[in-house]
Amino acid sequence: MKKVGIVGITGQIGTLLEKLLRDSVDFSFGGGISSETSPTNFRDIVQNCDILVDFSRPAATIHAVELASRYGVPLVSGTTGIASSDFEKICNYSRYIPILHCANFSEGIQLMAILLRKCSAVLSDFDFSVVDRHHRRKKDAPSGTALFLAEQVEQKAQIVSLRSGDVPGDHICDFCGDAEMLSISHRILNREVFAKGALKCASWLINQKPGMYSMLNYLEEKIGDRWR
Amino acid sequence: MKKVGIVGITGQIGTLLEKLLRDSVDFSFGGGISSETSPTNFRDIVQNCDILVDFSRPAATIHAVELASRYGVPLVSGTTGIASSDFEKICNYSRYIPILHCANFSEGIQLMAILLRKCSAVLSDFDFSVVDRHHRRKKDAPSGTALFLAEQVEQKAQIVSLRSGDVPGDHICDFCGDAEMLSISHRILNREVFAKGALKCASWLINQKPGMYSMLNYLEEKIGDRWR
Amino acid sequence: MKKVGIVGITGQIGTLLEKLLRDSVDFSFGGGISSETSPTNFRDIVQNCDILVDFSRPAATIHAVELASRYGVPLVSGTTGIASSDFEKICNYSRYIPILHCANFSEGIQLMAILLRKCSAVLSDFDFSVVDRHHRRKKDAPSGTALFLAEQVEQKAQIVSLRSGDVPGDHICDFCGDAEMLSISHRILNREVFAKGALKCASWLINQKPGMYSMLNYLEEKIGDRWR
Amino acid sequence: MKKVGIVGITGQIGTLLEKLLRDSVDFSFGGGISSETSPTNFRDIVQNCDILVDFSRPAATIHAVELASRYGVPLVSGTTGIASSDFEKICNYSRYIPILHCANFSEGIQLMAILLRKCSAVLSDFDFSVVDRHHRRKKDAPSGTALFLAEQVEQKAQIVSLRSGDVPGDHICDFCGDAEMLSISHRILNREVFAKGALKCASWLINQKPGMYSMLNYLEEKIGDRWR
Repeated sequence: MKKVGIVGITGQIGTLLEKLLRDSVDFSFGGGISSETSPTNFRDIVQNCDILVDFSRPAATIHAVELASRYGVPLVSGTTGIASSDFEKICNYSRYIPILHCANFSEGIQLMAILLRKCSAVLSDFDFSVVDRHHRRKKDAPSGTALFLAEQVEQKAQIVSLRSGDVPGDHICDFCGDAEMLSISHRILNREVFAKGALKCASWLINQKPGMYSMLNYLEEKIGDRWR
Repeated sequence: MKKVGIVGITGQIGTLLEKLLRDSVDFSFGGGISSETSPTNFRDIVQNCDILVDFSRPAATIHAVELASRYGVPLVSGTTGIASSDFEKICNYSRYIPILHCANFSEGIQLMAILLRKCSAVLSDFDFSVVDRHHRRKKDAPSGTALFLAEQVEQKAQIVSLRSGDVPGDHICDFCGDAEMLSISHRILNREVFAKGALKCASWLINQKPGMYSMLNYLEEKIGDRWR
Repeated sequence: MKKVGIVGITGQIGTLLEKLLRDSVDFSFGGGISSETSPTNFRDIVQNCDILVDFSRPAATIHAVELASRYGVPLVSGTTGIASSDFEKICNYSRYIPILHCANFSEGIQLMAILLRKCSAVLSDFDFSVVDRHHRRKKDAPSGTALFLAEQVEQKAQIVSLRSGDVPGDHICDFCGDAEMLSISHRILNREVFAKGALKCASWLINQKPGMYSMLNYLEEKIGDRWR
Repeated sequence: MKKVGIVGITGQIGTLLEKLLRDSVDFSFGGGISSETSPTNFRDIVQNCDILVDFSRPAATIHAVELASRYGVPLVSGTTGIASSDFEKICNYSRYIPILHCANFSEGIQLMAILLRKCSAVLSDFDFSVVDRHHRRKKDAPSGTALFLAEQVEQKAQIVSLRSGDVPGDHICDFCGDAEMLSISHRILNREVFAKGALKCASWLINQKPGMYSMLNYLEEKIGDRWR
């Protein structure tokens, strides 16, 4: 069993990851890193693991990537809010190790991105809009995922956001024309979906060459010939 | 049969009204007024009708109200964008004739307003939001109806608007809490609904005393005891 | 603090109830009854509690009601699948204690029932339909809640059911006419809503006279004057 | 301008087709065939046209195909309810002329079919369902389109139908898993979409070799390289 180190072990997804690892038949828990972890322990855990999964903050991510590249450990990261200069650094380290960064580890959302690109090509004269709805504690609006979805289409996107109750996450994309409307929408039922998706990516990334990857790369390989 | 005069006969709803009147068993067409109508003809038509239905522009509405009050003709108006000073004038004329003004003559929308007030009282700690979706030619956002719906609730309302394709008009209202979400939504299937609703109001208004009315007054009377 | 006894402590909602009671400031945990509980322990727990909350099976519910009536303990029950002859028995016991039975303890669903009655009166010539969507393990279709909602309207109801994935519970009710559609829909975000609703009912029931109650009675009293 | 003959000129879509042809810059109206048309006139119209568009009844369709094959006229047909033995006959005639048959000429619906196939491959362990909602006069349930959509996926499909009000046509397809749900849905805003889609197919079919085609063939060629 491959040992997984969790960067951001005390966060919402870090906690779910640890729980999933305890029940996993493919992976074992190789150690958890939080803001309380000493530099020595941080290094030891990285050195001791086969792969890192990181849902933390940008500073911790950068440090994890440095150590991971030094010890040849692949890294999956879902940390958001990384400045572009920091992101460049991370890309540089991907010359030495495979790194997969993604803002939303739901397979459904990644599939939606692929579908949107196709719809955009066919329904080129339709108007496009995205609604994102999330729990009231979410501070950023639009969501990173709404922006990611809007990037997939050629049309100008209208994006609007609702923050209410404890909605885990809805994204509703509409192509609307003069006589018909085609909608693709996604609903999170259980927040475990992100932790599960990150582990699926980890299984895949561990066999990749050094380089920078997104979850779309994983998904497109999984889809493979089945689409033709 | 009561004779209906249409102010704004060349507009989208004016045209539908004329068509409906031709098929009506309760009403006959008493004349149409457009920006081309001469002052003399305008006056003659008002004098000749039992009720006016107005979907025009504020200046025409004011003029129609003046004439209607002079000749004792009730008036139903769906004209939007009336300045508050002009609206005050209209209210003054309602000492002489019954006037019903409403921004949306759909019975479903008016019923929705009543339901929202009730939900707001019960779900007082839920977050409230309105999405309005209309065709891409609609210039104002949020829609007047979205604002009207938001006024019904005690909560702070999040209102967002989409303008796309040729959607006749959707309004989606959500009450969202920690563990459940209650939504009330409305979809226009056919724009005739507004013209039909205005004629229903006309049937009712013709029997009212002078005063200022909204479609809610009509609907509440129609509902009457059935809610207890 | 009032002591609550849980009948069906090992079930899904029983487990949630126990967790909620541990955190409650109004109630304390007075004991749990499962199919393993001996008759003597069953009796002792009932005798020792201020109120019972029951999410179990019909046989256990009947037995709990007998004991509760003997010791004057009010009872809230969400047990489903009770035969009508058994339900009559339960009603008989309600001469001695207040009993509240309800198939769905979500406030949103109960409010929806009230709204549907009102819509049905106004939109009497609209077609009415209910869609219920639940997780794939749910065996009964339509859901008890879909049937309950359909009972609120005067129209003939079309009811359809979907069983898929791990959806906690969606109910979508549509009134559809020739030119507009009004929809009221409800989504469970977190199954805790049922346990929380049952405890709200318990708080209320403890102050009622003997008799048979539903959650609508509680809600209507809560709403009270706020609707006028 | 190519001359289009309309088989089923008095039907709902036939009427729309004639209206569209009067405004078209690519096509002119070459004649209309109804149940009143004499055999001689039927033959003359077919002989006189560059292409036939047929929204009629199976018997008329068969007769139109016979004549079309005799005079080398391509034929687009949206007639439904054709028995399989009759459909075989039609296929035989497609050795002589290009024939395109399709139960739903909306581009959005055809695109949806393509998307469903792709989703089905990726979300193979998700449950799949289709809801179709149509006006109350529609007699068949599920709709032909709902069946067509269900055919695209590998999963067992749950299909449910609602018949209410004057809904032009909604189709809602859900892939539902343990932790997320992906939905693709389509709404007809204006029934003209079918007539417009049939004319798009006619433009394309006129340049094809003899053979049997569906609207998917047209759409896939239109999409072409844009999906890679």
